[in-house]
Amino acid sequence: MRTTPVIAIHGGAGTISAAALSAGAAQAYHEALHAILHAARASLLGGASALDAVCLAVEMLEDCPLFNAGHGAVFTHAGTHELDAAVMNGADLRAGAIACVSRIRRPVRAARAVMEDGAHVLLAGAGAEAFARERGLEMVEPSYFSTEARRAQLAQAQGAGRVVLDHDGAASAAAAPLDEGRKFGTVGAVALDLQGHLAAATSTGGMTNKRVGRVGDSPLIGAGTYADDKRAAVSCTGSGEMFIRAAAAYDVCARMRYAGQSLAQAAQAVVMQTLPSIGGSGGLIAIDRNGNVCMPFNTDGMYRGHARGTEAPQTAIHR
Amino acid sequence: MRTTPVIAIHGGAGTISAAALSAGAAQAYHEALHAILHAARASLLGGASALDAVCLAVEMLEDCPLFNAGHGAVFTHAGTHELDAAVMNGADLRAGAIACVSRIRRPVRAARAVMEDGAHVLLAGAGAEAFARERGLEMVEPSYFSTEARRAQLAQAQGAGRVVLDHDGAASAAAAPLDEGRKFGTVGAVALDLQGHLAAATSTGGMTNKRVGRVGDSPLIGAGTYADDKRAAVSCTGSGEMFIRAAAAYDVCARMRYAGQSLAQAAQAVVMQTLPSIGGSGGLIAIDRNGNVCMPFNTDGMYRGHARGTEAPQTAIHR
Repeated sequence: MRTTPVIAIHGGAGTISAAALSAGAAQAYHEALHAILHAARASLLGGASALDAVCLAVEMLEDCPLFNAGHGAVFTHAGTHELDAAVMNGADLRAGAIACVSRIRRPVRAARAVMEDGAHVLLAGAGAEAFARERGLEMVEPSYFSTEARRAQLAQAQGAGRVVLDHDGAASAAAAPLDEGRKFGTVGAVALDLQGHLAAATSTGGMTNKRVGRVGDSPLIGAGTYADDKRAAVSCTGSGEMFIRAAAAYDVCARMRYAGQSLAQAAQAVVMQTLPSIGGSGGLIAIDRNGNVCMPFNTDGMYRGHARGTEAPQTAIHR
Repeated sequence: MRTTPVIAIHGGAGTISAAALSAGAAQAYHEALHAILHAARASLLGGASALDAVCLAVEMLEDCPLFNAGHGAVFTHAGTHELDAAVMNGADLRAGAIACVSRIRRPVRAARAVMEDGAHVLLAGAGAEAFARERGLEMVEPSYFSTEARRAQLAQAQGAGRVVLDHDGAASAAAAPLDEGRKFGTVGAVALDLQGHLAAATSTGGMTNKRVGRVGDSPLIGAGTYADDKRAAVSCTGSGEMFIRAAAAYDVCARMRYAGQSLAQAAQAVVMQTLPSIGGSGGLIAIDRNGNVCMPFNTDGMYRGHARGTEAPQTAIHR
């Protein structure tokens, strides 16, 4: 008997005040998430691997300017873009990632190419771009990633002298919210395929006004991204530094493996206990080998959704 | 009652044939390790924190040309140097790391500066160098890191068309040993201080002939470096990609926390079972809160040593 495939995606977590998010804006997010879930679900039902499905979903999230990854990525302090992405295949624990790139149109494809190549797991900067070019991936001018909305966010953040986690109005407790629509900007996907394999992928533009060279949790295997067929596939979004220090994505799997916790217990413990204990905000999406989905977040909201088998996809922003 | 302080260090693991390592060369390694253990131990007995002690030990390992970190780092495929380092403080899970730098004399000091700054955990490339310069750290020309012995290794590796883990003659099963003195080149230290706090630090030049932009496990918190006062401090050395995929350093702590394993059980399981199951070679050094030291490796040898309280330091290369 084949496994019922499941796909789950996120478009970032943070302070997303229900009052401030206009009905029209909320509608646009729901529609974007639905379209991506439909495409990834169709792919899985057609026999695509979990790896293919998470890459497809993340590519679509990268292409959508609503989300802080690929086109629509936030700006660094220097007014540039630095994109990070990772992918992990639960069947064999292979993984690939790239960090600090600004010319690769779809960073998750480069992460996958690193994984397929097999020599390394993480490539950064110009070396990662040279690799992507060699592999024939689509390259773009850095301006491709820029949108007016993100430029306005940079101006706001620089005016306030702050590093800002996209869409988060409370990144610094001392500062007033800069932008009601701000959130932790990262996109990700986790999937279970017909063969029972798991995979996870994550992609991000990082934080508005971040220091050049900053690498967050998204491209770090074990921090922002992890997948192991025997436990779970996990993609995180939030204050990346705390996710790194907590080895958040791997910790979900470790709790299941060593402490015998369920996916829900493990994911909830990481997001509601471990991360807050070191000041970490955000959330994660996770699927286990049995198709259980868990999407906890300790912020006001997280753009998210999932689709199981032929059931109607479900999307949500707030609790 | 105060804790008896302990320091453990490593200078890389790999194929270190006892027959091929001349008595003079072995003596030089033992003397270097002893000198560093003496200095770090004196520092701990004088009341220095575990964090200070691991940074001191790693700085001395970086300065010593025998080891692949700092001065004496291996060359990339492009004939350049790219250095990585990380540090983690077990008391509060703070961490800092830098990757792909070529102008910071002592990379571990830059990693520590990133940690002390607190805004980020990992900075890469030119952004990391700009940060180090701002902090007033000593900058050098990239040629400072070069030694003739490493240049000869690059020529050998390029002649053979291989990416080579420093000091490892069996990085590729298909290839004949290139150099009897080759090893997985990374240095690291873990310490327990008088106050019972743990810390870990790791520094490396990576792999001879590696692709520009490759980031291994050393600067990745959870992969090559981890410290948590409640469990252990861990520094790894080996085929970094597999250590990343296994979240090796954090997994030692996770096994202790969730499965109730002892330090020895946890460290042995990671090095002797988990890593070999995905083709990973190397070893790690670890100390727990009770001062137990474990230094397993699945290769022929690992340059290593430890010193407990006022006891004579012990160093070893083979089993």
